[in-house]
Amino acid sequence: MSLQTRCELALPHWLESFVADWPEPLQTAEQRMRLAIALSAENVRHSTGGPFGAIVVEEDSSRLIAVGVNLVTTAELSIAHAEMVAISLAQSAAGNWNLGHATATQLVTSCEPCAMCFGAVPWSGVSSLIWGANREDAEAVGFDEGDKPANWVQSLENRGIRTQADVLREEAAAVLQKYAKKEGAIYHPGAGIDG
Amino acid sequence: MSLQTRCELALPHWLESFVADWPEPLQTAEQRMRLAIALSAENVRHSTGGPFGAIVVEEDSSRLIAVGVNLVTTAELSIAHAEMVAISLAQSAAGNWNLGHATATQLVTSCEPCAMCFGAVPWSGVSSLIWGANREDAEAVGFDEGDKPANWVQSLENRGIRTQADVLREEAAAVLQKYAKKEGAIYHPGAGIDG
Repeated sequence: MSLQTRCELALPHWLESFVADWPEPLQTAEQRMRLAIALSAENVRHSTGGPFGAIVVEEDSSRLIAVGVNLVTTAELSIAHAEMVAISLAQSAAGNWNLGHATATQLVTSCEPCAMCFGAVPWSGVSSLIWGANREDAEAVGFDEGDKPANWVQSLENRGIRTQADVLREEAAAVLQKYAKKEGAIYHPGAGIDG
Repeated sequence: MSLQTRCELALPHWLESFVADWPEPLQTAEQRMRLAIALSAENVRHSTGGPFGAIVVEEDSSRLIAVGVNLVTTAELSIAHAEMVAISLAQSAAGNWNLGHATATQLVTSCEPCAMCFGAVPWSGVSSLIWGANREDAEAVGFDEGDKPANWVQSLENRGIRTQADVLREEAAAVLQKYAKKEGAIYHPGAGIDG
């Protein structure tokens, strides 16, 4: 038997220079979200995955630690949501699974986290989470957000993770709508589409 | 700025030969669970991560598709729970993010999935999920299972994913207890331990 012993999360090739050329600072929630949304839009434009982008920044210094985009259909990994990619690359960059090990960090995602990404947030060590589009926006174009606890926001807050919803929501939702019009794959088993 | 562009999930070196030498078939739930538990125990013995193991098998043929162990502290990735590793390696082996793309598959995990892994199960395409130790067993030794919907089992069943709890529960829980006695790191930010 030959056992699969490794797999990789790797950002698409367009991404590094796109981020290097990003002109804006990342000081405010809106500035941070603008980059996350831009990543989601570029990911659609380059057909490198679903319409979702995320970044991890240091809360105080606004230093960018890592970015992520949805890679499900290109990496052939169902866990490769933008948030999971950003969290994992941030931890790899830091050499530490706990993104709160040195200083407070924030996860910024272009869309409300699904059930998996919601569950991943407390394990990551981030201190705060902000999102753009929400569940309704994602579901309106056919995505499945999964089953979260009804009080999922309070659950994060109870764990000391601050949250902020609806940051540039319309701009973020517009990328989802554009993706749906492009007939991008809605890649979950329930959708009956084999990615 | 130098951007982290990739990271890897890689099984520990002891694992490939351990699985190759595994003597039992994987036909029954108990046989499958015995391998998942053995992986959890070996992971503790080799100090390569937390006390959790998982496998993905084809339901009908009982063919082993992939295995996983918890790699959080060794890979420095908070998402590297045994279930996430097994799912991702199975998808890499298949070259398809949907583990139901060809035939029905089962995820077998030594412990009830946490909130993140629960959320990941429907996206993976597996048709069924069985687990050994449960939430109480994990929390009794200090692990945090996260906040799942109260009806999380029904949620999976509603999505067509069959479930079976408490398969060799005592054997699975014994590994958790052994890990706790060995004072293994309880690696989540709330535990106040920097992994």
